[in-house]
Order: sequence, then structure tokens, then C-alpha cells
Amino acid sequence: MATVGAELPDADAVRSRVNCWLDGFLEGKAQTAVGLRMPAEAHQCLRDFLAAGGKRLRPLVCVSGWQAAGGRGELGPVVAVAAALEMFHAFCLVHDDVMDDSATRRGAPTVHRRLARHHHDGRSTAAARRLGASAAVLVGDLALAWSDELLSTADLTSHQLQAVLPLIHVMRDEVMYGQYLDVTSAGRPTADVEKALRIVRYKTAKYTIERPLHIGAALVDAPPTVLDALSAYALPVGEAFQLRDDILGAFGDPTTTGKSSWEDLRDGKQTALMALALQRADAVQRRVLLTRVGDPALDEDGATRIRDILTATGALRAAEDMISHRREQAQHALDHAPFPPTATAALRQVADAAAVRTT
Amino acid sequence: MATVGAELPDADAVRSRVNCWLDGFLEGKAQTAVGLRMPAEAHQCLRDFLAAGGKRLRPLVCVSGWQAAGGRGELGPVVAVAAALEMFHAFCLVHDDVMDDSATRRGAPTVHRRLARHHHDGRSTAAARRLGASAAVLVGDLALAWSDELLSTADLTSHQLQAVLPLIHVMRDEVMYGQYLDVTSAGRPTADVEKALRIVRYKTAKYTIERPLHIGAALVDAPPTVLDALSAYALPVGEAFQLRDDILGAFGDPTTTGKSSWEDLRDGKQTALMALALQRADAVQRRVLLTRVGDPALDEDGATRIRDILTATGALRAAEDMISHRREQAQHALDHAPFPPTATAALRQVADAAAVRTT
Repeated sequence: MATVGAELPDADAVRSRVNCWLDGFLEGKAQTAVGLRMPAEAHQCLRDFLAAGGKRLRPLVCVSGWQAAGGRGELGPVVAVAAALEMFHAFCLVHDDVMDDSATRRGAPTVHRRLARHHHDGRSTAAARRLGASAAVLVGDLALAWSDELLSTADLTSHQLQAVLPLIHVMRDEVMYGQYLDVTSAGRPTADVEKALRIVRYKTAKYTIERPLHIGAALVDAPPTVLDALSAYALPVGEAFQLRDDILGAFGDPTTTGKSSWEDLRDGKQTALMALALQRADAVQRRVLLTRVGDPALDEDGATRIRDILTATGALRAAEDMISHRREQAQHALDHAPFPPTATAALRQVADAAAVRTT
Repeated sequence: MATVGAELPDADAVRSRVNCWLDGFLEGKAQTAVGLRMPAEAHQCLRDFLAAGGKRLRPLVCVSGWQAAGGRGELGPVVAVAAALEMFHAFCLVHDDVMDDSATRRGAPTVHRRLARHHHDGRSTAAARRLGASAAVLVGDLALAWSDELLSTADLTSHQLQAVLPLIHVMRDEVMYGQYLDVTSAGRPTADVEKALRIVRYKTAKYTIERPLHIGAALVDAPPTVLDALSAYALPVGEAFQLRDDILGAFGDPTTTGKSSWEDLRDGKQTALMALALQRADAVQRRVLLTRVGDPALDEDGATRIRDILTATGALRAAEDMISHRREQAQHALDHAPFPPTATAALRQVADAAAVRTT
């Protein structure tokens, strides 16, 4: 089973440094809560969420960007910046799970479900669920504020800060606007592959790969040629990553993905995979897709019918072809990139792992 | 009708400068959305929300803190910092309204209700409401990210930034933890006035008065004696502000407060006013309070019964006494404060207006 970044030079060391940094930061927040006589559960939820797993993909990609632009030796402030990206990602996931009312994440109950259960006692189920959602929105808010705090306490030079902050601002806008488009178009299946890919581009491709690479590179003053070479690599990798995510969301094994395999279908997310199926579907298949995808009452049987259509129409095959094509584009971009060989090798592995992962 | 800060020297000028700054910033974000081919509604919601009113209390208090610590002449970066505080406040209100499912704010539909209506077409009411809540969470997320962006693009010296950022971080933790405690204890009326006041202290007193004063003062390198004098003034004013808010939440005129007069009662918020009533209630009154406060089906008749008990038990009188006492404490603190006379005069007016306002 390929795990993204597992083969990066020092990938485990990076993960461990980032985890330590996050843990120390949250330990400080635990002390703050004690000082304010506030409940421990908000920061405890985040600690548990971060400890439950996650590939630390954005931190690893950020470090790769730093290496590609010539960063070497002691990781120094790149770890703090990478930790800020991971905290930002926790914010995204906690809020996404509230919006989708997802039940599980990283193989455990989602934050809002856990908090609903924690506060159920003496309340109606509806009231507890409402409270769980509200409390989880606040946990996410804290994670967003803390990602910013991690960055501004990262001990960057003011030159580094000036290089990194505009990229962080753009990244946040892109991912939130992408999520906005995703949320407001959910339940309305589209055959418009370009529109589905636009959501993908902002919500995932730039956010997961391009921006973390640029942010890492900005720490060592990368010239525009390096940033452009990183983009030429990043966008196909990011799209391949999301296309794989779409396929895993419909066909993945819940025991390895850590989330239900039909929630994406039930939520009716506009994915490129679904758009490809709608383009190829006959009248009967089309009607099944339009009525079943996004149906809140969708069950395993319904999900199976959708999956059969995704396969029968050739949409799954077409999505796999798109992934292969993007993987090749990324490898080709690396052939011409002005990166040190170790960085190029690491990025080749990220591209392969993003395209073929199972989690 | 007293409006907080209306009599501050240059209060209107401060409001106008802050409004201009926010407007210019959001105009830039409108351009960003066009560039990303993203829907205009997210930033448009925030623009409309900010344009719909609001007292700009935190910006005014921030400028007062700056003046109290010796700031004078051109407002300069204090305007950008004040604008960041107002954007942060927009974040708080948008998310609070989702959590409370409030219908109106500033006399208009709340952001989540507006977005639910906007996206209703072709969706069930339940799906549209869910979508409205999700989209409003994202609008709030953008406001939080943008408050931070406003601050980091405020053209502060690195010395000013180092003085201000830790205060911003503490303020955010306090208000989010306070809101967390508020949300997780809602629907459980308490006779514990101290606990109700602790929520008040973090959610409002420090957030609305003390921290904005400190942040303004930090811009001109205020010594600890000035910060302490500001705190001695701020905490009673902030508590008076919140106690007045509790009373307005139960007894206020919806046409001046801009929000329903029984939502607070229906949501069962733990307020000092309610704690005072529970302490003084006889068995029958107590039973009414415990069953009606926090009842999702509460109507105007039920609200009237609660209001009658708040009056009959003397809780309303006691809360008014607490407000008067805090107003005197604040005035007394100002008698001994080392502030320039114009700043002292402005802060006296803020204290009076916070205690007697009707909106």
C-alpha cells in the first residue's frame, strides 16, 4: 500500500518533527484553558484528531518545496510553517465534516459526532446533534486561528514572512472559495467536467500541492522560474490526487480510507468522475444517477447501482486515464525542472503516490 | 437614544475611516473572486452585513485605547487594526447566528437565512437550510481569515506587530472559549451567577472592551501601568455592557435591537439575569423558568411569563443594580487613570453608553 511521501528522504523525520511541534503548541493551549477555567474538550478534540492519523501530506510537500528551491540542512522554521499548514488542514476537515454531516474520519467518529455524544446526557438527540455541530464549528474556528498563530510565532525573518504571508492568504481564499462552490452546487449533478475540475483545482490541487510547495520555496527566496516549475508539476499531481479521491469516495474500502464509501455519493458532490458518467450515460442510467446521487436516503444497494453505472459507462476508466495522463505530465515537468536531484526524486514519489494511493 | 461612542471625539470620523478601509479590502476580494471565477455571494454577504449597521464599538474602543496611551494626530495604522477587529467581530456574529439559528441581525435576515433562501430553488426546505448554514459557516471562516489578513497587511512596524499579535491571539482564544462554554451549557439554566459572569467576562467584557483597548494602546508602546489602568476600567464596563445585553435580550424592543426579543430566552443562554432569577424564584416560578427557558417551542406568551418572573423576583432590579455598580466602578477607575483628559472624557462616555444603551 503506497502512502504518500513515505519514501521521501526524511519523510518520517519530517512527520515526527511536525507532530512534536503541534503537540507542544496544543500543550500550551491546554495550559491556557486551565488558566481561563475553560473546558478542556476543545483543544483535546484537536489533539486527538491530529493524533488519529493523517498523512501529513501538506507538511511533507512544503518541505519538498523548500528542498526543491535549495533549502538544505536543519529544517528550522520550515517545520513551524509546515505545522501551521497541518493545523489549517485540521480546520478544513473539521468544518467539512460538519457541513457533510460525515460520521467517521480517520477511522474514528468525526468531531461533531463525538461532541454530540459527549453532551447527549439530559438532552434530546436533536438538541445534542445541534450542540455537537456548533461546538465542532468552534473547534474548527480555533484550529483556523491557531494555524495563523503557529505561523506568526514561527520565528521567520520579516523577509520570509513577507514572502510567505501573501501565499497563505491566497491559499486560504482558494480553498474556502472552492469549498463554497462545492457546498452550494452539491446535490446538482453536472455533466460539466470543466466545472467539476475547477472545484478540484481550488479545493485540492492548489491547496494540497501547489501552495504548500510555493510556501516552502518562498522560505528560501525561490526565484519565479522555480515557482513556475513547481506549478507545472503541482497542478497535474493535485488533480490526480483529487481524481483518485473521487474514485476512493465511490469505490474505496472504508477500512483503509477511514470514511464511509457512499457518503460522497449521498452528498451528491460535483466530481469529475460523476460528470464523466453523466456525459456517457444512456437515458436510463442518467435517470438513476440524477435521482440517486445526492439522495439523503441513499443506502448500500443504491450506492452499488451508482458504482455499476460508473463502471459500465466507462467513466471509471476515463477517470483512471485522466489520472495516468496527469501523472505523466507531472513526471515530464520534473524532467525539465531546475531542482536538486534529491528534491526531484522526492517529488517523483509524491506524484506516483498521489495517483495510486488507497487511502 | 444613546449610541455607544457617538460622543467620542471624532467617533464619526473613526467609523467612516474604518468603513472605507473595510470596503476597499472587500472590493479587492471581489476582484479575487472574479479572477478565480468564483461566486460573488460570499464576499457580497459580508459587505452587506458590514454595511447594514453595527456600532463599530470595538474599532472605537481600540482608537480610545490608542489615545489613552498617548496616541495622537493621524490615525494611521490604528484604522487598519480597528478594521481587523471589526472583521473579526463579523466572523463571530455570522457563526453565532448559525449556532443559535437566529432569524434576524441588524434588522435584516441573518447570513445563513439569506443564503438558504438564495439557494432554495429546486431544493427541499431542509436541504436549503442545511446549505445556508454550511455556506454561512464558510462566510464566517472567510471573515476570520480576512481579519487576520487585514492585520498582517496593516503596515505595522515589526515592533508594533510583536506587541499586538499576542493580544490578538489571547483575545481570539478568550472569545472562542467563552462561546464554547456558552454553547455547551445552553439549555441548562444555572443559578450560579459567577459561572454566568465567567462566560460574560471572556465572551464579552474582555473581547468588547479590554482587549481592543489594550490592542490600541500596544500600538504606541503603552507601559504596564497604562494597560492595568485600562483593565481596571474595561472589565466593569464590559460586564455592564453584557448585563445590559442580557436585559435587552429578554425585554428589548426588536425594532431597536434588530433581533427577536425572545430568541435568547428560547435558546436558554446562561445569563447572569437568569441566574439571579433562579436564586430568588419560589418553587412555582422556578419550575416555569426551568421548563420554559430553553424550550425550542417558546412563543411570545411563554416569553411574557418569563419576563414577569424576571421582574417579580427582583432579578431585573438586581441586574440593573449590578450595571449601576459597574458603571460607578468604571468611572472611579477613570478618576485615577493616567490618561490624557480627552481620552478620559471619551472613555467616560463609552462607560455610560454601554450601561444605558437600547440597541
